[in-house]
Amino acid sequence: MNKFILIPDSFKGTMSSSDICAIMAEQIAAVYPDAQAVSLPVADGGEGTVDSFLEALGGEKRILSVTGPLGESMEGFYGILGDGKTAVVEMAAAAGLPLVLGRENPLLTTTYGVGELILNAAKSGVESIVVGLGGSSTNDGGCGAAAAVGVRFLNGAGEAFVPTGGTLKDIASIDISGLHPAVRDVRVTAMCDIDNPMYGPSGAAYIFGPQKGADPAVVEELDAGVRHLAEVIRRDLGQNLDEVPGTGAAGAMGAGMVAFFGASLQMGIETILDVVMFDELASDADIVLTGEGKIDGQSLRGKVVVGVARRASKLGVPVVAVVGDIGDNIAELYGQGISGIFSINRVAVEMDSARSRSRTDMALTVENLLRFLRSMEL
Amino acid sequence: MNKFILIPDSFKGTMSSSDICAIMAEQIAAVYPDAQAVSLPVADGGEGTVDSFLEALGGEKRILSVTGPLGESMEGFYGILGDGKTAVVEMAAAAGLPLVLGRENPLLTTTYGVGELILNAAKSGVESIVVGLGGSSTNDGGCGAAAAVGVRFLNGAGEAFVPTGGTLKDIASIDISGLHPAVRDVRVTAMCDIDNPMYGPSGAAYIFGPQKGADPAVVEELDAGVRHLAEVIRRDLGQNLDEVPGTGAAGAMGAGMVAFFGASLQMGIETILDVVMFDELASDADIVLTGEGKIDGQSLRGKVVVGVARRASKLGVPVVAVVGDIGDNIAELYGQGISGIFSINRVAVEMDSARSRSRTDMALTVENLLRFLRSMEL
Repeated sequence: MNKFILIPDSFKGTMSSSDICAIMAEQIAAVYPDAQAVSLPVADGGEGTVDSFLEALGGEKRILSVTGPLGESMEGFYGILGDGKTAVVEMAAAAGLPLVLGRENPLLTTTYGVGELILNAAKSGVESIVVGLGGSSTNDGGCGAAAAVGVRFLNGAGEAFVPTGGTLKDIASIDISGLHPAVRDVRVTAMCDIDNPMYGPSGAAYIFGPQKGADPAVVEELDAGVRHLAEVIRRDLGQNLDEVPGTGAAGAMGAGMVAFFGASLQMGIETILDVVMFDELASDADIVLTGEGKIDGQSLRGKVVVGVARRASKLGVPVVAVVGDIGDNIAELYGQGISGIFSINRVAVEMDSARSRSRTDMALTVENLLRFLRSMEL
Repeated sequence: MNKFILIPDSFKGTMSSSDICAIMAEQIAAVYPDAQAVSLPVADGGEGTVDSFLEALGGEKRILSVTGPLGESMEGFYGILGDGKTAVVEMAAAAGLPLVLGRENPLLTTTYGVGELILNAAKSGVESIVVGLGGSSTNDGGCGAAAAVGVRFLNGAGEAFVPTGGTLKDIASIDISGLHPAVRDVRVTAMCDIDNPMYGPSGAAYIFGPQKGADPAVVEELDAGVRHLAEVIRRDLGQNLDEVPGTGAAGAMGAGMVAFFGASLQMGIETILDVVMFDELASDADIVLTGEGKIDGQSLRGKVVVGVARRASKLGVPVVAVVGDIGDNIAELYGQGISGIFSINRVAVEMDSARSRSRTDMALTVENLLRFLRSMEL
């Protein structure tokens, strides 16, 4: 074992991906002191996404003054990765729910500051911008962000305005001719791990509105607004996004990213694997360690472990999942390129007790696995 | 992986060693269909010891009429192993606690029938007899068994009698000149996993008397009897067994085995490893799978896993322990030749729930381990 790749998902509510990478790396240093361990903490698109990418690939954090979710001026940031060609924006940095704590109101909140971050990154000359969707306080369909990069939204009187969740219904037409050339020329990828449509019972407002402070009446108003936006986009921009999975992400920011920024919506793990150039990194690795809080038959659907395993198996590199619980129906996972699945549970105790000992149990499980590999002379 | 050795301890109250061997063997057949799997179910000296040895090594069970623990005639048995040179006797077969269910009385019970089994085995021409101590209803210091093979116990009036727990105090002298030659010539090994002395606060009566039906007054009486027996053995046979660890096993049967049968007391796992010729069997194995219900720092003391690991490590064969719970302070175990320790716990649930799913969890854990080995091209 000369080279390990560490790319675990977080154990929700217990350990971050970065925590787990650190624990794994420490054990590798102890058991295989001469081996290389490449840590690739996994971002989920929400808060912490920029830091995760910077941790994995190096680079710098750029801080700038932007418009906050309720129109106030605030400090936002984004990351330029080590290669200088890719920027990472997390929408939570300028439109996140914690920024409006106690003042949540998705009728009023805007993604304008996210557009400012994207514009600043685009002007800096990167080739590609990754935008993490998640943790938002908004339901503006990304219109705020679009307005910040030159898209014009006109009301019935022909006046330009910046639509928010409550005023999407006032959009009479959309004019994208003023889109800033830097944004037009950059490749934008939106990271998004959910597949909700723009509107309707599984849409942005109904599913995520309540956690942003919307009561049932407001949810209905927000949903109607997004539905109206979808119609205008279809009519003015010729794009039918109504049923595209993921367009409902982050207050329909998914739709706005596609319609106004020409973004592709991608599962977070696929984006990460692309950005970190996983195939190149892993091609000479001896083993990939991944994991998640619970693995089961559901894990086949776009989760980190399976995403990693599919790529690694093409490279012929074994993948081991170190997980919290192992659920049922996991046989199929082996077919997806997972070589072994090891639970960190080492005593029969309930989740509450298990959670508080998860770090030591993770360390012990990884140490044991490494010692085992070593004694098998691998 | 061409050859697996399976030698797990039982998971007390959950799965027998034989159960676990079967589960492991089934998974090996599925993942490594061409590999050989040698099952060596581990006996603990108590009920089932003969069957375990026969399962591991083949052979035949001999059934004969013997004296039961309360003097009644009953059917007893012992095993002649496949090589025809070794017999295995479990004392529970003629003096076991289940045989006196509802009539427990260690003042009255005898190991006489155990002596009859040993004598029959010795006369059959074997070179070696293994006697499993455990699960007994007696506290006669093995005097009953000794009487059955020709040892004479004389009372104050010079009359021969067969002492029981309640009449050990009446032994005035012991005459071993009449010991049957077949017994004298055979090598006897007593399997014994405890290290209690004959008498005193950690002796046979105080520690094990109550579970055989002795109330505090009877415990005191039994303890005094064994103490007296120790004195007579010391005086008449010149053997000082008072403090020898293990002589208190099975109602001081350990002492009787040493004093009257010339037996060596041995940890069960060491006996098993010798009898099955583990070193020879394992020398060309690729891996040894063992395990126990709970592994921790205590496991260093004479338990199955460590006994197996010490032997296998001398042969350079990796040992994997598949266990229930992994306790604390296990680092030292790796130094004893254990390559890896894997818990079958795969969800965070309490012991009551864990126990009921132990078979499927064992199967899944072993399957995963094998698939992992296979994908590592081992």
